[in-house]
Amino acid sequence: MTNLAQKIISGDHRSIARLITQVENDDPDAVETMRQIHRHTGKATVIGVTGVMGSGKSSLIFELAVAYRAEGKKIGIIAIDPTSPFSGGALLGDRIRMTELSTDEGVFIRSMGTRGMMGGLTSALYDVVEILDAAGMDIILIETVGVGQDEVDIVKIADTTLVVLVPGLGDSVQTIKAGLMEIADIFVVNKADKPGVEQTIAELESMLDLQSGLDRRIPIVATSAKEKKGIPLLTDKITEHQAYLKNSKTFEQRRRQRYEAELIEIIRKRLMEFIFDEKKLKSTVDCCIEQISRKELDPYTAADQILGKILK
Amino acid sequence: MTNLAQKIISGDHRSIARLITQVENDDPDAVETMRQIHRHTGKATVIGVTGVMGSGKSSLIFELAVAYRAEGKKIGIIAIDPTSPFSGGALLGDRIRMTELSTDEGVFIRSMGTRGMMGGLTSALYDVVEILDAAGMDIILIETVGVGQDEVDIVKIADTTLVVLVPGLGDSVQTIKAGLMEIADIFVVNKADKPGVEQTIAELESMLDLQSGLDRRIPIVATSAKEKKGIPLLTDKITEHQAYLKNSKTFEQRRRQRYEAELIEIIRKRLMEFIFDEKKLKSTVDCCIEQISRKELDPYTAADQILGKILK
Repeated sequence: MTNLAQKIISGDHRSIARLITQVENDDPDAVETMRQIHRHTGKATVIGVTGVMGSGKSSLIFELAVAYRAEGKKIGIIAIDPTSPFSGGALLGDRIRMTELSTDEGVFIRSMGTRGMMGGLTSALYDVVEILDAAGMDIILIETVGVGQDEVDIVKIADTTLVVLVPGLGDSVQTIKAGLMEIADIFVVNKADKPGVEQTIAELESMLDLQSGLDRRIPIVATSAKEKKGIPLLTDKITEHQAYLKNSKTFEQRRRQRYEAELIEIIRKRLMEFIFDEKKLKSTVDCCIEQISRKELDPYTAADQILGKILK
Repeated sequence: MTNLAQKIISGDHRSIARLITQVENDDPDAVETMRQIHRHTGKATVIGVTGVMGSGKSSLIFELAVAYRAEGKKIGIIAIDPTSPFSGGALLGDRIRMTELSTDEGVFIRSMGTRGMMGGLTSALYDVVEILDAAGMDIILIETVGVGQDEVDIVKIADTTLVVLVPGLGDSVQTIKAGLMEIADIFVVNKADKPGVEQTIAELESMLDLQSGLDRRIPIVATSAKEKKGIPLLTDKITEHQAYLKNSKTFEQRRRQRYEAELIEIIRKRLMEFIFDEKKLKSTVDCCIEQISRKELDPYTAADQILGKILK
């Protein structure tokens, strides 16, 4: 076992950070360590927290982290939102609270960019979850902004997905209709100190009434970071959802989904590296692009030509 | 040439819609038509419009479409935001205006989901742009919500990218710092009838002052759909940007980037189909996932095994 792998399994924060950086930079050294830590994974509960900007996801994660810490659990937090306070991009008050959390030995916080040459986020995210899991984190909280592609990824990775709404946002229920409905394991109506909270909950309830044939009704939890309200109920609902997953055998199925998504991602990345490798196919690819630009070749035929060169 | 390809080149809306549906459904029949229309593409100006929810992107696109129609130009609109009025998910007033636009023979509107099995959006979007281009649209407007992965894609596809902000959103400038800065060709401060517009512009200006070494300063245009303000200036700035691209040779470079991204996307999709083809590798992949779940195998080694079976 590599020295780094050993240190990660022992929970060393510096080593965790180092391997994450290697993974983010596509450092080939990371692969051997990633291989070795895999058999130490599978114990962490992965919670995805998604919702539009301004829904208070970060404060909610902060409160959840505090609650789980009080139970003695080790926490990993991954923020994939460039405007998240965890990424340092927010209000001073928030940042100070986050700093308090980050000096806690039982908490590891990492923010990740949403950018990547070839959809680089996803593969790094799978790796980071594996790393934190292997490092002994009991709970991994992942914050995503939850619009577009990211929300799909969170569902593939998380055991439990929280969809965070705020009262009076107007388009909140529209948004849910448009897609968040299917990914929510628990709805959180955050900032429940604001007016309109009853209406938002009522709208959600009537939407849930329309769902039939499900063996589980999605719970709605009202929370307020300001009034420190709702967090115990939320952690209960998360525990209940975990129990539901395990009883209904969907837990194993979700885990298998995550591994499938991770495997696809690694294969995709390897193939792309192969195709764009300077020494191998790059000149063919460049030549194709030139011909496509001049309309002498179309992209579909070009793809077939390139694939013909690499596939058995 | 296929019958469908011919009809698309003649600008027939039903045929355009049909090919887009084929493309979205991964219908193998689409490929031959896509091959044939490629040499008819490259004339349309592709404008990406990105910004957070509530920034009034749809109204702005509506006003731009009206302005370009007045010049006799043919317009294609692609909305990749599930909450966009173009997707039918918004306020009644907006919907009525959009309906007016959609009954105009010179306008083709299509909304697309952000979901896809394996990042399905991107490849379909490249295809839709090619289709609208081949069908003779002079201007193609693409609306994306602009957080996360989507914004990267828009930059790869668009000739000119508008980043839309609204006064008083507070975190607007934060958001720009976090990434939108690099993708903006033009900043639009929309809803300029609202208070705080001067401050937002001033913040943007001082941010732009910090940028050095650029041969072009990003213009800021204040617009208001309500007061019908700023649209002529915005279309001027778009024309100026197009001229800048062509003079500085970056136009060809951007187009080549788009083709490269499109080619990568097609290759990626083909490879994924190949790997998950029932008859070919699916049983190997399923077996690997099972072993990964049982910690007998790690994802990286599994990826190598699968790749070893398919690559020359």
